[in-house]
Amino acid sequence: MANDPIAELGARAKAASRVLATASTATKDAALQAAADVLLHRHAEILGANAEDVAAAEAAGQGALVVDRLRLNDARLQSMANGLRSVAGLADPVGEVADGWIRPNGLKVQRVRVPLGVVAIIYENRPNVTSDAFGLCLKSGNAAFLRGSSGAIRSNIAIASALREGLAKAGLPHDSLVLVEDTAREAAVEFMRLRGIIDVLIPRGGPSLIRTVLDNATVPYVIDGDGNCHVYVDASADLAMAAAIVENAKTQRPSVCNAAETLLVHRNVAATFLTDLAPRLEGVEFVGDAATGEILGERVTSLATENDYATEFLDMKLAIRVVDTLDAAITHITRYSTGHSEAIVTTDLRAAERFCLEVDAAAVLVNASTRFVDGEELGFGAEIGISTQKLHARGPMGLRELTTLKFVIHGQGQTRS
Amino acid sequence: MANDPIAELGARAKAASRVLATASTATKDAALQAAADVLLHRHAEILGANAEDVAAAEAAGQGALVVDRLRLNDARLQSMANGLRSVAGLADPVGEVADGWIRPNGLKVQRVRVPLGVVAIIYENRPNVTSDAFGLCLKSGNAAFLRGSSGAIRSNIAIASALREGLAKAGLPHDSLVLVEDTAREAAVEFMRLRGIIDVLIPRGGPSLIRTVLDNATVPYVIDGDGNCHVYVDASADLAMAAAIVENAKTQRPSVCNAAETLLVHRNVAATFLTDLAPRLEGVEFVGDAATGEILGERVTSLATENDYATEFLDMKLAIRVVDTLDAAITHITRYSTGHSEAIVTTDLRAAERFCLEVDAAAVLVNASTRFVDGEELGFGAEIGISTQKLHARGPMGLRELTTLKFVIHGQGQTRS
Repeated sequence: MANDPIAELGARAKAASRVLATASTATKDAALQAAADVLLHRHAEILGANAEDVAAAEAAGQGALVVDRLRLNDARLQSMANGLRSVAGLADPVGEVADGWIRPNGLKVQRVRVPLGVVAIIYENRPNVTSDAFGLCLKSGNAAFLRGSSGAIRSNIAIASALREGLAKAGLPHDSLVLVEDTAREAAVEFMRLRGIIDVLIPRGGPSLIRTVLDNATVPYVIDGDGNCHVYVDASADLAMAAAIVENAKTQRPSVCNAAETLLVHRNVAATFLTDLAPRLEGVEFVGDAATGEILGERVTSLATENDYATEFLDMKLAIRVVDTLDAAITHITRYSTGHSEAIVTTDLRAAERFCLEVDAAAVLVNASTRFVDGEELGFGAEIGISTQKLHARGPMGLRELTTLKFVIHGQGQTRS
Repeated sequence: MANDPIAELGARAKAASRVLATASTATKDAALQAAADVLLHRHAEILGANAEDVAAAEAAGQGALVVDRLRLNDARLQSMANGLRSVAGLADPVGEVADGWIRPNGLKVQRVRVPLGVVAIIYENRPNVTSDAFGLCLKSGNAAFLRGSSGAIRSNIAIASALREGLAKAGLPHDSLVLVEDTAREAAVEFMRLRGIIDVLIPRGGPSLIRTVLDNATVPYVIDGDGNCHVYVDASADLAMAAAIVENAKTQRPSVCNAAETLLVHRNVAATFLTDLAPRLEGVEFVGDAATGEILGERVTSLATENDYATEFLDMKLAIRVVDTLDAAITHITRYSTGHSEAIVTTDLRAAERFCLEVDAAAVLVNASTRFVDGEELGFGAEIGISTQKLHARGPMGLRELTTLKFVIHGQGQTRS
């Protein structure tokens, strides 16, 4: 499909989406299993293509992290196949009757869950996204219309070819997965303007991709944005619990969006808490306000700036601020939060209630690590991303978030007067 | 607020939205009642301002329809006030626990319905939208950030001022309603790029407004699009019921989006049905395919073109096509539908099931008029628009569609391993 215009590729995905919308769960699950089989069967071809991508990245002097994200091996391929089988085991959201009622005139109204249609995803170097996104789209009855990066193009072509063979084995259209092979920026812009073809676009990438989408997309999209997450340690907190939560939220995996970036601590417990916390976070750089500096001395690298409080470090670095009240903590969060995940550690019922009500974020947590805000951890089985917008889906998006509701109305000849 | 920059107006709406998010239902209802009272109390001022708008429209040679939409009188003002009181009587969607579960590690997860925040609406000449939109936004805990047209600006300023007085009487911030008084096109574009301020934009207007939104908006939006609605009369239909439904769907109010535009009729019943139908639709112009022409002769004005089938007439005009099968009907609808409302008249269970499953629209109806696809008729009490997109809300949007879900997670010190 390399040379076809993007609109033509989109039309093929759209046509396939009509078949998928009425495919049975059993057929979709069979296709997921078959796709997993073909993925493993074709491991030599896929790893060969991937080796070329990796060699090109190394030749271009890409950093070790980029190369590692790109690299596949037998274990990673097995994990992609396992992912598809695990999605086959999840409940199918399609056909669920979300609600229903009868009107006084006898009209029977139901809202039934149906696929969105064509789900488009623009993503960066990780080739496993090709398989993961395909699995979630297929299970929810959607055609996957994928556009990866040039750096992973050989891997993506090989993976997509295997997945398409799996689809055909189960009797589903090849075009239930369509990969855009043109990785030019102009093609990405054309892609995000295929209104009438793409039902939702989920961009998975950094700020420059998000900016391109905001400025150019005419199709509906869901933004999987930054996570500048806070943990607030209240005056009433169990301080041992608070230290464990802050340590986990900051250090368990600092490079991800649900890691904590700023610690807010109530003045009444700041000295005790920060003094106990510091040795637990040995590898973490601290920046803090003046009060933090007074408590921790040289352990604090520098005075925290506005910019520090606004930054998603994604690194072993923590901004700290001592606050006088719960209100001051909420005000700080309201100012700097990106609306992802915000936690309070407290034993005070009223403080917990106010925090949950007044903090505006996809997820608010009481006495738990921000790291739990993730599709797998919350029980969705898998996730396609974490939405930081409020429209359509907010927070981790699983299979249900790849569907919409259709009104199905049954009458007995009713007309409107 | 006339001279304030739009971003400043937005920041004020945002600040008010934080207060509204935690306002009680009783307070919001009191504000709706107070706003209705002030609207009636200030009738002389509002009707005076409106008379100036009407005079300007007439002086500019605007058509009778435009002037009629613009004109207020005591009855219309009473109806606006009644609308606010009726919204006060609806159930408050905020605080509903949509679902909840406990994870194996003991985390208690709930998804709680919360306001979107700042709901922005761009609309055209009808000044009643100022009051209707405000009512729905307030009840659902959102600040209303409104931008009407220049033709209704005097009316809108007077109405907004009355509603803001009502808010203050109930102790809510004036800025729960912010009206943009700058009606220049540049201001509209600036408005739809207030990312971080506007949580959803609902444009209510024609294709040129929609195009401006698609090309310029960076805030999330929901499109209230066209309705090119079809009625398909199946071979098995009760033909008397079918005639009543077609007549109702076409003529009861032809100027609205849920009116029918094309009739598809199965060949087996076409001659009988169309011959009986024609006299019932005396004032309606017919365009049809060759088979329709053979049955109805000169009653058909012209052969229906591609363009006729693709057009939302919004008028006393009906396109007709005779089809050989249910499949052909579905294929026609798939090609020309705008995804609004599609109806089948049938007594055949399998045909009804297939139509509901295979037709991709916000609403599918069996044996009922398309005119029922409307927030009031479906029991929402009121509607802010009818979404023809699949993201967030599809079909009539009531109070629930002006909310989002927040994850509220309670732990006992859990950390992730």
